[in-house]
Amino acid sequence: VNHRHERAVLALERALGPSKVNTERPAREAMARDESETEVTVPRAIVYARDERDVASTLSLCNEHELAVVPRGAGTGRSGGAAVIVPSVVLDTTALRSLKSIDRDEMLAVVEPGLITGALHAQCESEGLFYAPDPQSAPWCTLGGNVAENAGGPRAYAYGVTGDYVLGMRVVTMNGVALSLGRRTAKGVTGYDMTSLMVGSEGTLGVFTELWLRVMALPESVQALLASFENTSAAARAIPMLVRSAAPARCVELLDEHCCAAIRDVDPSVLPTGVRAVLLVEVDGDEHECERRAARVGEALTSAGALEVFASRHGGDRERWWSARRVLSRALRALSAHKVSEDIVVPRTQLARMLDEVRAIAEREQLVMPTYGHAGDGNLHVNILWNDHSERPRVERAIRTLFERTVALGGTLSGEHGIGALKRDYLSLEQSPTVIHAQRAIKHALDPRGLLNPNKVFSSATHRAC
Amino acid sequence: VNHRHERAVLALERALGPSKVNTERPAREAMARDESETEVTVPRAIVYARDERDVASTLSLCNEHELAVVPRGAGTGRSGGAAVIVPSVVLDTTALRSLKSIDRDEMLAVVEPGLITGALHAQCESEGLFYAPDPQSAPWCTLGGNVAENAGGPRAYAYGVTGDYVLGMRVVTMNGVALSLGRRTAKGVTGYDMTSLMVGSEGTLGVFTELWLRVMALPESVQALLASFENTSAAARAIPMLVRSAAPARCVELLDEHCCAAIRDVDPSVLPTGVRAVLLVEVDGDEHECERRAARVGEALTSAGALEVFASRHGGDRERWWSARRVLSRALRALSAHKVSEDIVVPRTQLARMLDEVRAIAEREQLVMPTYGHAGDGNLHVNILWNDHSERPRVERAIRTLFERTVALGGTLSGEHGIGALKRDYLSLEQSPTVIHAQRAIKHALDPRGLLNPNKVFSSATHRAC
Repeated sequence: VNHRHERAVLALERALGPSKVNTERPAREAMARDESETEVTVPRAIVYARDERDVASTLSLCNEHELAVVPRGAGTGRSGGAAVIVPSVVLDTTALRSLKSIDRDEMLAVVEPGLITGALHAQCESEGLFYAPDPQSAPWCTLGGNVAENAGGPRAYAYGVTGDYVLGMRVVTMNGVALSLGRRTAKGVTGYDMTSLMVGSEGTLGVFTELWLRVMALPESVQALLASFENTSAAARAIPMLVRSAAPARCVELLDEHCCAAIRDVDPSVLPTGVRAVLLVEVDGDEHECERRAARVGEALTSAGALEVFASRHGGDRERWWSARRVLSRALRALSAHKVSEDIVVPRTQLARMLDEVRAIAEREQLVMPTYGHAGDGNLHVNILWNDHSERPRVERAIRTLFERTVALGGTLSGEHGIGALKRDYLSLEQSPTVIHAQRAIKHALDPRGLLNPNKVFSSATHRAC
Repeated sequence: VNHRHERAVLALERALGPSKVNTERPAREAMARDESETEVTVPRAIVYARDERDVASTLSLCNEHELAVVPRGAGTGRSGGAAVIVPSVVLDTTALRSLKSIDRDEMLAVVEPGLITGALHAQCESEGLFYAPDPQSAPWCTLGGNVAENAGGPRAYAYGVTGDYVLGMRVVTMNGVALSLGRRTAKGVTGYDMTSLMVGSEGTLGVFTELWLRVMALPESVQALLASFENTSAAARAIPMLVRSAAPARCVELLDEHCCAAIRDVDPSVLPTGVRAVLLVEVDGDEHECERRAARVGEALTSAGALEVFASRHGGDRERWWSARRVLSRALRALSAHKVSEDIVVPRTQLARMLDEVRAIAEREQLVMPTYGHAGDGNLHVNILWNDHSERPRVERAIRTLFERTVALGGTLSGEHGIGALKRDYLSLEQSPTVIHAQRAIKHALDPRGLLNPNKVFSSATHRAC
């Protein structure tokens, strides 16, 4: 029992009222982990924030009592950003979930961080508007989590990632001070871009209480194309050709041979018969543009080596093809007890080579490593499946080799999941000590005691001044 | 004579060789100012960096000798970002101007910061590629300056500002350490977004030595439309209607009645006869899309109250209409001895009201204030013309009132020129002391002695820890 921590929790109960502070063990256990395989510890308490004042009180009290805080949205993260790895209070922001306004003239949505991403999608679409970022977990994840991890999704190919849509925010730093950062106007460059610094900082620099998000006009029409390739390499080689052809796609997804086989095993009706490796592509625009773009992309896919290109004749085709991704999750879970889903990016020209490397690693370590992802951006989700604890050393070796090869090919450790806790120890493969030092200096500037989501992104060894 | 500064300059000459360090007075005087009306002091020396090592040596020696450094590109900035306001060395980066590579598969251009923006435009276009940011000064300004100020331009309406195209960079901090920030891949969220922190930091956090810029496929075709309105207010009121209609424009520029009259006085052939206030709009796409978009935008402009809409029948029309902006600069200079060009942004629905405010300020202070700008983004360049020193107090009052009204209407002090030295004292109109404090903390983390472009963005009062 740590008396300082006990005093901190008592102070929270006193300040916020007992209804907002939960110290029951089952609740604390449920909030210890996110959707990663991070090793966790049970938090001391859960605080359910209902407004910005609750967030500010929690942070300033914990700062005062030197107790770490882990901010949390829906807990759908895959890198351990919301996992509890040191004694902490979990600050649950999911009750801060109102959609405050959508302004059609400014193309601006003002939301609270606990709003489910899919709820914003639905509301925008009902008004003829479009919030482009579409992480796979959109039906469950929160916008606050998306911003904290700078989440991506298939549509990032044409529309960019979450950070490209964050104009500004209200955010509380560890000292309990609420800041208004950025702007609500379409344009604005006043002062440092503190907004972008907060985006993707994985809950280590501040806790969001309001987000000012850019929205767009809803594309009138969307069509999907499914291109089948002889094998994974051929599908990967097609991607730079597609980019060069300036084919106007909005997403370019890859499913490798493993994935296609696994999908077929679970539900043979999802993919066209005989398909081995796949690129799933979408185009959008007004109805007329969409037709023309689909034709152009279809031609580009054929020139790039597709054996066959299927065009969605109606919404049903498109829906069925995308369901391959959902089926895939089930299929992969059915194949093994444990799964890590990595999230690397390589230059597009290196995709085929990277997929060769993945195959070589899988063979060497005797692991199954099905790979899919937003390959149009060079972003691959490399899965590693295993069943038994004894396989863990081989999994660890596979992960390290995967990252080493990624960086050697000019790539990066994360396209959209963040570094969190899981990849922290690999950060130095990609970033120099001086770059990590500069980030630590910024962390120290905004959270001198290192209490906000510590040991995420980089280890919270004591910062020393430059 | 400051002996510490003299020793610093001697150390620079010794380290870099005398050919890279200029201490002659005319050269120093020429490098004291940018294109703003900032009051300047003559720098101690000019360093002409030829490579990253020169940049690193200059910064580390000046850091050691506690002499301030002002990084400088082409000096075309309008907010005093490159103006010398304390005893300093000017670090001229214009010799670092190579276009290292353009990669069509990654859609990536690697450039040095001294490269002229227009040179990148030209090279990209010759390869069927497109670098979207288009500041008015593109034929003269450098990409390093554009990134430092997060420059915009007309095409920002559809394509965003410079920062939206910076994937990563090499940058040297004041301690002389070179950092590789960001990534060269299409996607990547590894670590804090230090790249975006550097973008728009106005030379106060680091000196760029290499920029990794995203490029796109060149739109096959561009068309312009010129819409004439009864008066300035009517043109401004059309803008939110245009946005609501989802008219697929790539830029929406406004010229108010003053500007149209001034243009007509200098060259009556530039604008169609009788035009009083104007929106100049462009669309792009493949040839077919472009035609359809022009038709849609034309209808939207008519619905939004345009008296007449002229469509460019050939490149000549488009070129002539844009030349109105160039003619305008000449025309405004002809009207007065002094000019300040402000750079505010307001929500689009407040444009008409803001323009009313501008008229009221001009009447009250008896000044001429012609206004134009990227009004599709709510971004207005409000000019203030005056001839005589005695008018200066009225000019100052006009500027302060302009900024106060801008902020009151939910706007921001700068859309694309930055805060620099000129707007520094107004920053607190928009940003709270806590937000300014957070920025100072970051400045302090990366430049503890406050020597890199001091007193820009905010005053370099000694930073105290949180």
